[in-house]
Amino acid sequence: MWILRLNMADRTYRLEEAPAAYTRLGGRGMTSTLVYDEVDPQCHPLGPNNKLVFAPGIVTGTTAPSSARISAGAKSPLTGGIKESNAGTSWAQHLAAMRIKALVVEGQPAEQGHYWLAYLTWDVPAARPKVEFFPADEYAGRDLYQVFPEVYKRFGAKVAVAACGLAAEHGYGNAGIAFNDRKDAPTRYSGRGGLGAVMASKGLKFIVSDNAGAPGVEVANKALFDQGRKKLAEAIREHAITKPQGGLNSYGTAVLINILNEAGGLPTRNFSSGRFEGAARIAGESIFEGNKQRLGKELYNHACSPGCIIQCSNTWHAADGSEIASCIEYESDWALGANLGIDSLDDIAEMVRLCNAYGLDTIETGATLGVAMQAGVVAFGDAKGAIGLIHEMGRGTPMGRILGGGTGLAGKALGVTRVPEVKGQGMPAYEPRAVKGIGITYATTTMGADHTAGYTIAPEILGVSGKLDALTPEGKAALSRAFQATTAFIDSTGHCLFIAFPILDIASGFEGMVEEVNGVLGTSWTGDDVPRLGGEILKKERAFNEAAGIGKAQDRMPEFMRYEPLPPHNQVFDVPDSALDSVFGEL
Amino acid sequence: MWILRLNMADRTYRLEEAPAAYTRLGGRGMTSTLVYDEVDPQCHPLGPNNKLVFAPGIVTGTTAPSSARISAGAKSPLTGGIKESNAGTSWAQHLAAMRIKALVVEGQPAEQGHYWLAYLTWDVPAARPKVEFFPADEYAGRDLYQVFPEVYKRFGAKVAVAACGLAAEHGYGNAGIAFNDRKDAPTRYSGRGGLGAVMASKGLKFIVSDNAGAPGVEVANKALFDQGRKKLAEAIREHAITKPQGGLNSYGTAVLINILNEAGGLPTRNFSSGRFEGAARIAGESIFEGNKQRLGKELYNHACSPGCIIQCSNTWHAADGSEIASCIEYESDWALGANLGIDSLDDIAEMVRLCNAYGLDTIETGATLGVAMQAGVVAFGDAKGAIGLIHEMGRGTPMGRILGGGTGLAGKALGVTRVPEVKGQGMPAYEPRAVKGIGITYATTTMGADHTAGYTIAPEILGVSGKLDALTPEGKAALSRAFQATTAFIDSTGHCLFIAFPILDIASGFEGMVEEVNGVLGTSWTGDDVPRLGGEILKKERAFNEAAGIGKAQDRMPEFMRYEPLPPHNQVFDVPDSALDSVFGEL
Repeated sequence: MWILRLNMADRTYRLEEAPAAYTRLGGRGMTSTLVYDEVDPQCHPLGPNNKLVFAPGIVTGTTAPSSARISAGAKSPLTGGIKESNAGTSWAQHLAAMRIKALVVEGQPAEQGHYWLAYLTWDVPAARPKVEFFPADEYAGRDLYQVFPEVYKRFGAKVAVAACGLAAEHGYGNAGIAFNDRKDAPTRYSGRGGLGAVMASKGLKFIVSDNAGAPGVEVANKALFDQGRKKLAEAIREHAITKPQGGLNSYGTAVLINILNEAGGLPTRNFSSGRFEGAARIAGESIFEGNKQRLGKELYNHACSPGCIIQCSNTWHAADGSEIASCIEYESDWALGANLGIDSLDDIAEMVRLCNAYGLDTIETGATLGVAMQAGVVAFGDAKGAIGLIHEMGRGTPMGRILGGGTGLAGKALGVTRVPEVKGQGMPAYEPRAVKGIGITYATTTMGADHTAGYTIAPEILGVSGKLDALTPEGKAALSRAFQATTAFIDSTGHCLFIAFPILDIASGFEGMVEEVNGVLGTSWTGDDVPRLGGEILKKERAFNEAAGIGKAQDRMPEFMRYEPLPPHNQVFDVPDSALDSVFGEL
Repeated sequence: MWILRLNMADRTYRLEEAPAAYTRLGGRGMTSTLVYDEVDPQCHPLGPNNKLVFAPGIVTGTTAPSSARISAGAKSPLTGGIKESNAGTSWAQHLAAMRIKALVVEGQPAEQGHYWLAYLTWDVPAARPKVEFFPADEYAGRDLYQVFPEVYKRFGAKVAVAACGLAAEHGYGNAGIAFNDRKDAPTRYSGRGGLGAVMASKGLKFIVSDNAGAPGVEVANKALFDQGRKKLAEAIREHAITKPQGGLNSYGTAVLINILNEAGGLPTRNFSSGRFEGAARIAGESIFEGNKQRLGKELYNHACSPGCIIQCSNTWHAADGSEIASCIEYESDWALGANLGIDSLDDIAEMVRLCNAYGLDTIETGATLGVAMQAGVVAFGDAKGAIGLIHEMGRGTPMGRILGGGTGLAGKALGVTRVPEVKGQGMPAYEPRAVKGIGITYATTTMGADHTAGYTIAPEILGVSGKLDALTPEGKAALSRAFQATTAFIDSTGHCLFIAFPILDIASGFEGMVEEVNGVLGTSWTGDDVPRLGGEILKKERAFNEAAGIGKAQDRMPEFMRYEPLPPHNQVFDVPDSALDSVFGEL
């Protein structure tokens, strides 16, 4: 297994045998460990000493279902702490097939403002990966929907692509890394935390991979792996949320809009209410029905990457049947819809398309625009105004820079006190005052406000692995801790986090995941090892953050949530600090 | 002694007897203690739960020389930590004469965007202070040079004034509190840390004071006080820096321009060099000579407030003899001059005037503009461009908001890595790579980058209290600690920090300061108590900051100073973290 280092100071690369200590790491475990081991927590995120690390998961590149996740990690320009953001894309499978344990982008050109493309292939005679660098200024300053096809045309239809967009070139805290979807479009994202800006700060615009001739993933115990794979695949196909033509495959993640609205936990108009009167019009069911009407047939969702059997990626089509954008995730739909008081799917889809075009994270964009609307920059509900602001972000105007800096920065620059963020990162689509456990996750995860870090929504709202009262803080610290630790493990396997639904409810699914991992690595971990192994990753992330100046005092909700009661439940965020501190205190 | 509380939620006030625990506090000791005791470190600086506290020093309002300092304190919108910023103004003496130990501005109107004026007088029959509130929207959105005379016209020539400007109305981290100078002009500032924005967030535009009939300061032991006062006054009149027609009285604080340039420690063009080729043209000597030429006579400086015998406040006059601005402090001269590559005193004076007009801190403004020039917003040396940007700050355009947010925020919004700030606050006029002790103060003070918090320049550059090698880090942590603790005490007495020069060099001057304080309070403190008492204040400030999320990891220099050698000495900031940590570790 290789550690592949791209040195952007002089556009050279180096291949190293992965050290023994990294043998059992993958995905988030790998990126967070390498960042912890090699990056000075005090470094400037856009300076020469930050490193951007990509790692496929442990089972990525195998036939394990829904496992084409790439983990990206670095010191975050948005939070100032460690960042891990993962995405589903064939690019992950390419790296895994070339046996690249981690791809590390380091150094920085002496002069800023020029860009390169790294072309990663398998050198068959030498039996190792190979990198060529090409000037890429021609792709800079442009819409990613335009340049992706050019790159595919140049390097062939079978390549996979990681890229950063205009937002990254501007150095925004809100700048994601775009990956290819099933098509030559920039529609899969490691969106959160500004990792695109780290990539651009190194003068790296694209990493194009072609895995032709690559040996593929080495599997230590094929029989065990196959046994696990089957168990997990069966569980996925069985569970109501993940099964074919089930919730996610039919309605996409936006199936959650009506559910959260019903629960009073759908943040509306910059977190001033938990209910949106336009919720039904933007819900996943409306996407399904709208597409059916416009296309004249039922459209089920597609896989973001080969081998995914959940297939939750949707598209939204214009009246003429042409595709406006993919994917209208629940998070994007909420962020650019309910959170802005906008109830038109056409407008929301246009904003999603613009975020993809410019390389912006949709969640951060929506949370930031909510703050801008709070400040009166444009009015709530003004879709044209919101679209104009996203264009300003793309162009890098002063207002675009304020918004590109993310929710926390925009709140400061615009003098707003109702700023829904933790550690500078904007909050996702679940209201902490209405769903207390997810608030604990937002507050305490190393990532800044992040729902995926410990998705307690499963038991608090969805009835997965039991059903808890969303409004009570009781027991939720322990719940968040357990979810955060398990998630860190799942994020390391390379599976999509959506396997959590079946593995939480179906014991054999959980066994299957562990057996897959043991099959690949030759380990003999049990289910009990899962939270322990996840916890070790969290400890490293936490240690990095503490050295970067992010400790307990940053594991807090914004003050307004402690004194502004949220309709319809009229609750404040009443989780005591001691409960927040116990999440990591007892890890 | 009174604690006077203005509740801006309903424009009422309350007088309380100062609690016994506050009896011996004044100035910074009083403001920092009250903020520590009453403000939630996790509150939003511009929200309803922050408090803005004003306190005159212990000897303020007496005949003690150079003692008309007002301390202002709150949670800072710039640093997110505790903030104390003091200024010399007769307004301090008014509060002291009315026996107001602390004036606390708390609460917040339900609706933002309206302003009030608090009119503070002495109610002779009731023998206590009295407050009336008047609507003040007519003064909002305007140049403070225009509204100060209107306020004086309305309330009489003898009033004193505290005010906030347009910068504060915009909610900027760079928004000072302006006080009257000898004239009805907004030219004395509690500039640093955004306290003006806290004032404006509470809907408070002016506090106008009239101390007619007030009883004056109670002095416990008049003989001892007089003895101390004489000793201190003699020392001030004797020391080369503070004596009449000495360094400060002749050339103002800008006498330091040539000295720091010579030492290679004058930060130039956004901290890219320690030498400025235009230094001589903007030096204090040039101000003196320029005024002489334009006025046809030698002009010595004036006192910022009654009773100051140092009299360091200068003015700069246009070719026709009219005054452009006061005061061209060393810090302002540097920030808006050398730091921007600008060598015209007329341009610098115009920028100082604009900062006063809009209510901006000159240091933060210059440090921020340096970052904007680094980003290429305008070129280094482009005075017209810089002036235009200050106007944008006044108008609150998007670019103005980026810059108004201060050095740290602007660095993030503009994607710059060479950002000279600590805890978000822009660095003052001494290069840490050329003067290591002051760098330790910048890094470790509770205030964010601040030279006044522990002015080690005295021994490192000026030969006051010995002469040390500026370039060596050896012994500087202990030096900074001693200066920081002593400074916290001086900031509590109400004396101008410039008494530090004579009291460091002349033992009887130091004795005099302590005797003055003992005379007022009836205490029997000795010189040995000074660092202990100062240290107690620092400990409270430190505890507040830790609870606000600002700890050891924030006591650091920006990364670029650790890898970019600074001409002409070509040194990096080589103070080890352990030395930085020892400053507070051994307090």
